[in-house]
Amino acid sequence: MTHLQGIAASSGIAIAKAYRLEVPDLSYSKNKVDDPDKEIKRLHEALDVSKSELEKIKEHTKKSLGDEHAEIFSAHLLVLSDPELIQPMEDNIKSDNVNAEAALDETANMFIDMFKNMDNEYMKERAADIQDVTKRVLAHLLGAEFPDPALINEQVVIVAEDLTPSDTAQLNKEFVQGFTTDIGGRTSHSAIMARSLEIPAVVGTKDITKQAEKDVMIIVDGLGGNVIIDPTDEEIESYKQKRAEFEEKKQEWAKLKDESTVSSDGEHVELAANIGTPDDVAGVLENGGEGIGLYRTEFLYMGKNQLPTEEEQFDAYSSVLKQMGDKPVVVRTLDIGGDKELDYLDLPDEMNPFLGFRAIRLCLERDDIFRTQLRALLRAGVYGNLKIMFPMIATLEEFRQAKAILTEEKEKLINEGTDVADQFEVGIMVEIPATAVLAKQFAKEVDFFSIGTNDLIQYTMAADRMNERVSYLYQPYSPAILNLVSNVIEAAHAEGKWAGMCGEMAGDEIAIPILLGLGLDEFSMSASSILPARTQLLELSKEEMKSYKEELLSMGTSEDVVAFVKEKANLA
Amino acid sequence: MTHLQGIAASSGIAIAKAYRLEVPDLSYSKNKVDDPDKEIKRLHEALDVSKSELEKIKEHTKKSLGDEHAEIFSAHLLVLSDPELIQPMEDNIKSDNVNAEAALDETANMFIDMFKNMDNEYMKERAADIQDVTKRVLAHLLGAEFPDPALINEQVVIVAEDLTPSDTAQLNKEFVQGFTTDIGGRTSHSAIMARSLEIPAVVGTKDITKQAEKDVMIIVDGLGGNVIIDPTDEEIESYKQKRAEFEEKKQEWAKLKDESTVSSDGEHVELAANIGTPDDVAGVLENGGEGIGLYRTEFLYMGKNQLPTEEEQFDAYSSVLKQMGDKPVVVRTLDIGGDKELDYLDLPDEMNPFLGFRAIRLCLERDDIFRTQLRALLRAGVYGNLKIMFPMIATLEEFRQAKAILTEEKEKLINEGTDVADQFEVGIMVEIPATAVLAKQFAKEVDFFSIGTNDLIQYTMAADRMNERVSYLYQPYSPAILNLVSNVIEAAHAEGKWAGMCGEMAGDEIAIPILLGLGLDEFSMSASSILPARTQLLELSKEEMKSYKEELLSMGTSEDVVAFVKEKANLA
Repeated sequence: MTHLQGIAASSGIAIAKAYRLEVPDLSYSKNKVDDPDKEIKRLHEALDVSKSELEKIKEHTKKSLGDEHAEIFSAHLLVLSDPELIQPMEDNIKSDNVNAEAALDETANMFIDMFKNMDNEYMKERAADIQDVTKRVLAHLLGAEFPDPALINEQVVIVAEDLTPSDTAQLNKEFVQGFTTDIGGRTSHSAIMARSLEIPAVVGTKDITKQAEKDVMIIVDGLGGNVIIDPTDEEIESYKQKRAEFEEKKQEWAKLKDESTVSSDGEHVELAANIGTPDDVAGVLENGGEGIGLYRTEFLYMGKNQLPTEEEQFDAYSSVLKQMGDKPVVVRTLDIGGDKELDYLDLPDEMNPFLGFRAIRLCLERDDIFRTQLRALLRAGVYGNLKIMFPMIATLEEFRQAKAILTEEKEKLINEGTDVADQFEVGIMVEIPATAVLAKQFAKEVDFFSIGTNDLIQYTMAADRMNERVSYLYQPYSPAILNLVSNVIEAAHAEGKWAGMCGEMAGDEIAIPILLGLGLDEFSMSASSILPARTQLLELSKEEMKSYKEELLSMGTSEDVVAFVKEKANLA
Repeated sequence: MTHLQGIAASSGIAIAKAYRLEVPDLSYSKNKVDDPDKEIKRLHEALDVSKSELEKIKEHTKKSLGDEHAEIFSAHLLVLSDPELIQPMEDNIKSDNVNAEAALDETANMFIDMFKNMDNEYMKERAADIQDVTKRVLAHLLGAEFPDPALINEQVVIVAEDLTPSDTAQLNKEFVQGFTTDIGGRTSHSAIMARSLEIPAVVGTKDITKQAEKDVMIIVDGLGGNVIIDPTDEEIESYKQKRAEFEEKKQEWAKLKDESTVSSDGEHVELAANIGTPDDVAGVLENGGEGIGLYRTEFLYMGKNQLPTEEEQFDAYSSVLKQMGDKPVVVRTLDIGGDKELDYLDLPDEMNPFLGFRAIRLCLERDDIFRTQLRALLRAGVYGNLKIMFPMIATLEEFRQAKAILTEEKEKLINEGTDVADQFEVGIMVEIPATAVLAKQFAKEVDFFSIGTNDLIQYTMAADRMNERVSYLYQPYSPAILNLVSNVIEAAHAEGKWAGMCGEMAGDEIAIPILLGLGLDEFSMSASSILPARTQLLELSKEEMKSYKEELLSMGTSEDVVAFVKEKANLA
């Protein structure tokens, strides 16, 4: 067996054989053939298998993510049935007596080049569709396996270099027991998705794809961050035991589902969840979430060829609000740019995208996009307890501008006779150091703060959290971070406002005692972390944690903080 | 005439005709020729002209920047005389009857491809040399002008998209009256170089290269940030007047050269300069600098094929220290990475280089490079008043590690019987928000702080200062920045340490009154800003500025700060 250490990205234990998610080798040789008709037949067989696969994937995606996300596969299916593309392939086989692989690839490339060079976003998208589909057909011609996570129908552990959001969206929890990747960290998108799907995951193992052959047995220990390839019988037994214990723990946690979150000395805090789509709400309620602290609206804009309409957005927002009833739902307005790109927006390439044109910066310039989203939100707000939150606010001017646009759209809707939410809070993400430093000034104007630690930490430490060479500087427990967090909470309370946190830190067992002591009002995390967090909070005394505040804030290093908290909060 | 507004990057006024610094169109057609001997003759003529140009540039570079920087041109000259390269070009002309352009370009490309694909840094450098030189020779064959700033021999204003550090280094102040560029900001390298050379400059005009034809008259107003293309006679007269007034002002300032910098209520502050090479020291002394607040050591590492040796570094550092005598010299250890790359180090490409593997992060991993520099510094310290400063410190651990390495090297040198500086301060750049927040903790361990505002501002605002779409967020007067600066100064004083500033902000007329009030001890700036800053400081009351501190720190926006300071400090 081989042991690898990675980053525990989603808790739980998985034991199953490896399914390697990778694009197969698609190299082929161009040959003269004696029987062109046979090649044409081979081509059509490969096209047909591809079609039936895409149909299944489309169905699966529709069920798991909704019609919009399935659209891309409709486009792919159209390509496979397009006579203007297929006929030239057949002609090529007949006139040049070449094999189907060469005819397919060369013809497709001709169209791809032609479409790519057109100055037209739609045609460029077509080029991308043809490229995707051609790979699949070519794989079938070559007898190579083309991995389709949506079509997995036996118990597996997925092994991949990394998972794209669309890969993750296709995973079927019934069969996919867990996954493990070479790259990524606790805050990478695949890790966040894994927690939201409650699939055990270990990321950042560096070379699982080099070590794990197809079908080898694998243990993914999402509690400890370990991966074992080809485990011994004893190891399998021992992890089965751990898995059983974890299931038991989960059942204990589940008893707290309908409990309120109250510290041992009687102080209530709110435990909320971070979500990406309306489908995630069910998991939040099952896990006893008291609200939604962060609804990331980006997914509405991703994996599509165009901006979502006001109606599409209204449907999504009102669905979440209705499902949550009275419980608060904090919706973050569009945070695109940085590592999240949209092909159809044609954003400029930037040298440092994390320090670039993204989120509210983009929305204030492209206020057409922003206004559409705000209108959808204002209308949906009628159906629940809406709170609107602006991301990446760095200056008071930005907040004032964003709020002015919101007020304008609200008045327009009222004048148009449309029902809109009349009372709702408007707050900001605190994820830029300047904003954390100036929290006192901001607290006079905003209704609430939600501290976005994923970005706040990387800016405060000037270290890209995706860059493995500097990721050691991504230190949530750095006294610098704690001082900023404390400053934000104090500033909020001084003005009678509330402060939450919606970064990964809010669900972390070492951070929770500290944050309780600093006075954090709302903790928003992956749904699967809520019950363990509640379990922990019920045992903690807020007064005691508060008594450590000054000592913690004057510490020098992250190491000192961790050692201190582990002792005081009885953590292993 | 056409008026453009840009960013005033270096003060003064220039009036002269445009010299367009741009790579000419080098496209050619490949032709069959009747007289190959004639083509061989043309090739050699072009080679000879290129050689004599490179000789001149080499001489000029040697004079202005020293032997090391001239080395690159020796390498280029070798290429032009290499029979293994020239012979195949001649053969090509003779055997294929092609024109000299085609023979030159194709032969050169063959070698470039061959060298590039070798897994050997030295051969890759040769490929780059051949590429540079081929362009020049090809330009001569085509009768195109190849711009050489070093060879300018009449009064001009340089017009360019941007200037590289090596372009700027070649400028001859005798002839180059000023320059203006499409891109860049006050803190871009070309702007910093312009101030160090005292050449008037306006950068970031967006489209000067589109607007200004070759030889058109241009006014560069480095005081107001204006550029006028093809000015009227009245405009020329008016700017000549302004230039005369500025010269007069400079003579007034010059009288303060040997004065101490004391506020109107008798408080002394230190005015120091930022430099890049030993040659810059003369300008510091001429401008009455009381010390060197930032010696950027990167230039020793740039424009070369290999790391500088300990001896080369010792020579540079001891030269600066000797020239400065008793006056303090703060040497910053290597800050490479980010926007400053070294080809021969082969650093990985990063998605966000400003948040990446640079400066102390790189030095702690590549401690071989770091130790060589520290040894050179320790030895040179014998000759003056050395202070060592580590850049990009984000955690106390990093400082402790860096200082431990310094102590080790000091002990090694002593054991080897080498003379080393025995008493010298060791401090840090404060340019990462975490460090500014934790200044109290750092102040217990470091001897001094120097606030690097260029980076501190961009990290605190999470806005890349080089990215024009977000450069509006690069706000030195943001109350967030002022709060961090104040925190650093207070922390230093509480431990009896001193705090300086070596970013562009330290020489800014709006920032100076604020910084005086916050208690800054040392202001380090471009040499050319020292006398104007001293003039301003002699008129300011520190007590008065201090009385505004709380009000300034509780303001909401940069705009509020600027309006307040302009009124209180009598600025236009």
